Amino acid sequence: MSSQARPEVDARLLNEFMNTIHSLGGDNTGAMNRLALSPADAQARACLINWLRAQGLRVRVDRIGNIFGLLAWAGNDAPVVMTGSHLDSQPRGGRFDGAFGVVSSCAALAALKRFAEETGHKPKANFIIADWTNEEGARFQPSVLGSSVYAGELELAFALNRCDGEGISVAQALRQSGYDGRDDPPPPPGAYIEIHIEGAKNLETQGVKIGIFTGFWGALKYRLAFIGKQAHTGPTPMEEREDALLAASCLISELKSMADASGKEMHTSVGRLEVYPNSPNVVAGETVLFIELRSSAQKILDAAEAHMKEKIAGIARKCKVAYEVRAIDRRRAGKWDAGLIKLAEQAAGRRGEKFLHLASMAGHDAVPLNKICPAVVIAIPSAGGILHHPDEYSRPEDMLLGTQILCDMLWDICRKGVIPRA
Amino acid sequence: MSSQARPEVDARLLNEFMNTIHSLGGDNTGAMNRLALSPADAQARACLINWLRAQGLRVRVDRIGNIFGLLAWAGNDAPVVMTGSHLDSQPRGGRFDGAFGVVSSCAALAALKRFAEETGHKPKANFIIADWTNEEGARFQPSVLGSSVYAGELELAFALNRCDGEGISVAQALRQSGYDGRDDPPPPPGAYIEIHIEGAKNLETQGVKIGIFTGFWGALKYRLAFIGKQAHTGPTPMEEREDALLAASCLISELKSMADASGKEMHTSVGRLEVYPNSPNVVAGETVLFIELRSSAQKILDAAEAHMKEKIAGIARKCKVAYEVRAIDRRRAGKWDAGLIKLAEQAAGRRGEKFLHLASMAGHDAVPLNKICPAVVIAIPSAGGILHHPDEYSRPEDMLLGTQILCDMLWDICRKGVIPRA
Repeated sequence: MSSQARPEVDARLLNEFMNTIHSLGGDNTGAMNRLALSPADAQARACLINWLRAQGLRVRVDRIGNIFGLLAWAGNDAPVVMTGSHLDSQPRGGRFDGAFGVVSSCAALAALKRFAEETGHKPKANFIIADWTNEEGARFQPSVLGSSVYAGELELAFALNRCDGEGISVAQALRQSGYDGRDDPPPPPGAYIEIHIEGAKNLETQGVKIGIFTGFWGALKYRLAFIGKQAHTGPTPMEEREDALLAASCLISELKSMADASGKEMHTSVGRLEVYPNSPNVVAGETVLFIELRSSAQKILDAAEAHMKEKIAGIARKCKVAYEVRAIDRRRAGKWDAGLIKLAEQAAGRRGEKFLHLASMAGHDAVPLNKICPAVVIAIPSAGGILHHPDEYSRPEDMLLGTQILCDMLWDICRKGVIPRA
Repeated sequence: MSSQARPEVDARLLNEFMNTIHSLGGDNTGAMNRLALSPADAQARACLINWLRAQGLRVRVDRIGNIFGLLAWAGNDAPVVMTGSHLDSQPRGGRFDGAFGVVSSCAALAALKRFAEETGHKPKANFIIADWTNEEGARFQPSVLGSSVYAGELELAFALNRCDGEGISVAQALRQSGYDGRDDPPPPPGAYIEIHIEGAKNLETQGVKIGIFTGFWGALKYRLAFIGKQAHTGPTPMEEREDALLAASCLISELKSMADASGKEMHTSVGRLEVYPNSPNVVAGETVLFIELRSSAQKILDAAEAHMKEKIAGIARKCKVAYEVRAIDRRRAGKWDAGLIKLAEQAAGRRGEKFLHLASMAGHDAVPLNKICPAVVIAIPSAGGILHHPDEYSRPEDMLLGTQILCDMLWDICRKGVIPRA
């Protein structure tokens, strides 16, 4: 056998597994509705666990519902490489975000395992496939919840007590879905590698098929309430109104101006806005804004936070409402592991593929993992850069190539028994 | 018996009936949650019907669920006077808005009936007490739904097809609550008199106990959708976003500026805002605004509508979103009947009470009724002018006095058999 021989990913397995997962929570418009720990998410989890067991992996479900499939075939002293992503989606989200990372991990490991068995190669690394709970942060906030608990960034009790918009806690949802596991999670791996669709159109625009994220933006997330006073929208004099929705509107416009003024150095948003009592004839008594500021530079975020706090206070005064910061979530900007970046570059090179270095502006489970082990995220093109939308799309050949690169990275470590260092 | 002798309202009946109605859908914070055709509204309706039947009135429930209690004791040729209001409330609304008008009508008619029976007076007018379906417009839009169908201002089929935020239609809600009546409504009365809490603090400030509305403001209500594009709040470049919530925010701020610029001649509001998919990490793909403009002058509303339309188009361009007007509801400003106003003034005068002339800025069932018969609304003080809020409060002695004035007005017509003309 030539030393050039390598595992080859099975395109049929990859596509069929993706289609199966798409069918769980997907509708005929292409939209996915597989919110964390929903019935559809539970079905997708069961499907994953069946597959992992059929491959001979041992399955663990920990107390926050993270699923781990362990292939411990190389002895206790061998390095451990973890790959994975998340099966939960946004409401009316896309079919590839998260799901591709999980399915790609499965297809890559299946190829590697079959190759090792067929060629008699003695594996020198152990592997874990992870499906992390509530990465999206759509049903429960904060996002990357399961991976943050795993990485020790969040307390388990805090995470279990987070509630969705209906007041259902993570703990309740875990019980309802049957994923209130009792297993100990595996110890931190020697490396964590995640594959994802790009979510912007740099790869598409430049005609490149492989992206390697070299760093990730920081994020500052505020859950802010404006507290006004319910009143009739008819007779209540305008000057006596304490309109919580007006205050929210002023701040949303201001946040857009802040992003504009940053010269593309900062992204800002309010994606979720709760309005109470949300009746046509009632001046809103309370609004809750889910604010995000994102930048690659911590000092930009720090300055923006100070500026935003001033604006919040000013708007509250002007609109005669009170305000209350209900939660703050901070994610510092960071770099991915140089050794793993190099491994990805080499893997692409060996397949004759160009790659692009990218900065990840979205959160990924790899961000908390990065605190406890070397980590990296690689990317494949997404058509039109669309993410969190039913039109999300990545071509089968791009999924196959990305999965092959992932597989090659895993195989390099498996063959040598060494996680590369920069 | 002196010609000065008059029916006297029973304070105990009034208070106990109010307390009973308060207990149906009320919670321990004082908030009422008796949305139209909810289980609590159905209970309050049943309670009203029991009372009407116990008083010997014939009850009819029409196809839009309006309840009528008929006292046809004066022969077919006698004039008919209708009084009433609505038992539905806002979400976390107050205890007096609507409920007082229904209960007060009952207490007034009970006093009149007992007096006639005890004194042997031959009644020369017939009476109807009405409870109108979905006055608030909180669960279903438009507001004053049942009375508008009765007055021929809305088609029954249109009204039955209105849906709440959960997609439940009025027709379904009528069936679920058991109020999908089959009775023909009574023909238009000779006069409609409604009593309500003021909802502003003119009476309180001036220390006057009786308000007589002489006219009502017009209203223009738009249900407007901004249609953007769902996208990830992280990587999506700011300049490529089509943010429907940003567009909504710009318009909400603009509407406030329009009211400010009107010099108190116009009230504007957005009380309800729907955001889709309303997820923290997703740029909103659609928002729906429930806009109200109110003024006593139609030309102000007309000019404001033209201005608003320009602003909507400009904001849509700036935010790169589309827009769609999903519904328009117009209520022209008008005057209450001069003969009934005079009747109310005389009734107050005979009791030695001062009165204030007021303009009604809120909608009432009397507005559509005004299209088919002479109508008027009289008011009692509401503490702090609070309306549509759990703190709504009117003092028992003020409720009693208002009910007495209403009773006196009804008695005048009953005694003479003539509805006064200006």
